Amino acid sequence: MRATVMYGAGDVHIENVPDPAVIEPTDAVVRVTRSCICGSDLWPYKTMEHSETGRVMGHEAIGVVEAVGADVRTLKIGDLVVMPFAFSDGTCIFCHQGLQTSCAHGGFFGTVEVAGAQAEAVRVPQADGTLFVLPVGEDDALMPSLLTLSDVMGTGHHAAVAAEVGPGKTVAVVGDGAVGLCGVIAAKRLGAEQIILLGRHADRVALAREFGATDIVSERGSEAVERVRELTDDYGVHSVLECVGLEQSELTAIEIARPGGAVGRVGVPQDETMPASRPAFFNNISVSGGPAPVRAYLEELLPDILEGRIEPGRVFDRVIGLDEVPDGYRAMNEREAIKVMLKP
Amino acid sequence: MRATVMYGAGDVHIENVPDPAVIEPTDAVVRVTRSCICGSDLWPYKTMEHSETGRVMGHEAIGVVEAVGADVRTLKIGDLVVMPFAFSDGTCIFCHQGLQTSCAHGGFFGTVEVAGAQAEAVRVPQADGTLFVLPVGEDDALMPSLLTLSDVMGTGHHAAVAAEVGPGKTVAVVGDGAVGLCGVIAAKRLGAEQIILLGRHADRVALAREFGATDIVSERGSEAVERVRELTDDYGVHSVLECVGLEQSELTAIEIARPGGAVGRVGVPQDETMPASRPAFFNNISVSGGPAPVRAYLEELLPDILEGRIEPGRVFDRVIGLDEVPDGYRAMNEREAIKVMLKP
Repeated sequence: MRATVMYGAGDVHIENVPDPAVIEPTDAVVRVTRSCICGSDLWPYKTMEHSETGRVMGHEAIGVVEAVGADVRTLKIGDLVVMPFAFSDGTCIFCHQGLQTSCAHGGFFGTVEVAGAQAEAVRVPQADGTLFVLPVGEDDALMPSLLTLSDVMGTGHHAAVAAEVGPGKTVAVVGDGAVGLCGVIAAKRLGAEQIILLGRHADRVALAREFGATDIVSERGSEAVERVRELTDDYGVHSVLECVGLEQSELTAIEIARPGGAVGRVGVPQDETMPASRPAFFNNISVSGGPAPVRAYLEELLPDILEGRIEPGRVFDRVIGLDEVPDGYRAMNEREAIKVMLKP
Repeated sequence: MRATVMYGAGDVHIENVPDPAVIEPTDAVVRVTRSCICGSDLWPYKTMEHSETGRVMGHEAIGVVEAVGADVRTLKIGDLVVMPFAFSDGTCIFCHQGLQTSCAHGGFFGTVEVAGAQAEAVRVPQADGTLFVLPVGEDDALMPSLLTLSDVMGTGHHAAVAAEVGPGKTVAVVGDGAVGLCGVIAAKRLGAEQIILLGRHADRVALAREFGATDIVSERGSEAVERVRELTDDYGVHSVLECVGLEQSELTAIEIARPGGAVGRVGVPQDETMPASRPAFFNNISVSGGPAPVRAYLEELLPDILEGRIEPGRVFDRVIGLDEVPDGYRAMNEREAIKVMLKP
């Protein structure tokens, strides 16, 4: 089959690779009908060291089950499924508490160990615990929004949960990428009263307003902090969704939180240390979050998509075929596209 | 009156200073009947730069109200009161949510701005919001435990709350100072099933066991992490009370938390950055805490002291007069005493 292989920074190719097959009895093989490029794929796109063997990329997908191992009980060939970016057994102590990204037998797609889904097909370990059957046809008009349940909508929701968003609260979202935009949707969905987006790209900011952002702050650093304070009677916000992962964005997140507030991190941190330890401490600000257990959020978010209450699929502003994936990376990296959907 | 003045690292003197008086109409003056030296006083004792004017130290006290300003409504002369280490108006938005350490009109005792309580008397700003009347006589046998409501017992409780301690949970307490020991009491009081103390001083460890610690880990760094993992089926603990504030202790705290766990910080952080940002992120560990709003916890903790269910006053292992305060600092700094009580 054809798949997206990254060999190093900026070095992405579409190549023929061996077809995926059932290896473990708990595996399934899924023919990919929709996949996409993630903001987090841009980190290796910018920094990956050269590798001879490369890495099959992609961790978000919807597809059709083509084969299942002998131990798979809940899936059958022909099921249309959404694939969370992490696989998980669904039975361990962490899965039971809804933290599937720490599953005892889990892992992540698109890594050196487990091939990804920017491809014609993908092998899914722990298929019973991982895959979620969708009650629609494979070309349903809701495909873009359903695909966001693989990652960005669940991740934005996780940031909002970690940031303790709730009715009447003031919220800031740091970052206007697809996750930040889904964070706006999540904050509104959970009842936030004021939603301030920190971002500066006209197309993204416009979409954020449609998703429910009440204020836009395009400044950065200390000017952004000052602006958020002006917008919140000088208190800062109750909840901050940190959707970037850089030192500067983490610093801003802590500085715009009000005393007793909460920062929910979903931007993969690029540094070993976290800034502003003392301001966070003296203001009793909590910092939590991490890789979103999107599998845990599927049941909660799906009805809102099926019934049209949220439209996270609007973050996709470009649809491509496999051959165009290298250019899709370029376009996202250059902020020419918000998020690129792939029809293999 | 006589008071403790610190002029720089290791430079502590008992001196005559002007008697405190009511300055603002919301002030009270309290004759100090009990005070003490705090582990956090040892940071300036180790590092304070020389100051010509010095700083009257001390932020924990019980005493008798001697004078009140014209606007004070809830206190009368002769009341025996406990003084939280932070003063607070009791009426602002943060006080109403129980975060008195972020009070809009609040501050801290023993600072350059507000004189402390290692003295014969102390001026208490925002007296109505700050002071709490005790239902006992000034020489009651419970004085040591009641005095811990000024800081260390409330701070240990805050660490436990921030670390989400609850029935059946596994807990680790990093640090065997008075706050760590009170953290053990707090964890047991909130229903923890396993309480692991990380500490290495024989006297403190023995007291921790009496307070409810089930396991002691005397190793440090990666060996301590390994030992805690052995004690918890390799999971790590649900809740970590970080009662030190050094980079190494914060690192250990994050490394011994299990995925989805919580670190409650009450050790004043000595660095601008927090370590282990990426491990905390990838394991979805929350880090929260800060200066404890001990005023908020008084009503909850007081009955347990009055009725003998907890005895945090046992952390005091030396009682001194004002003249001995410089030696008290030395003794605590050299780990010769756990915590020193002062009868001025």
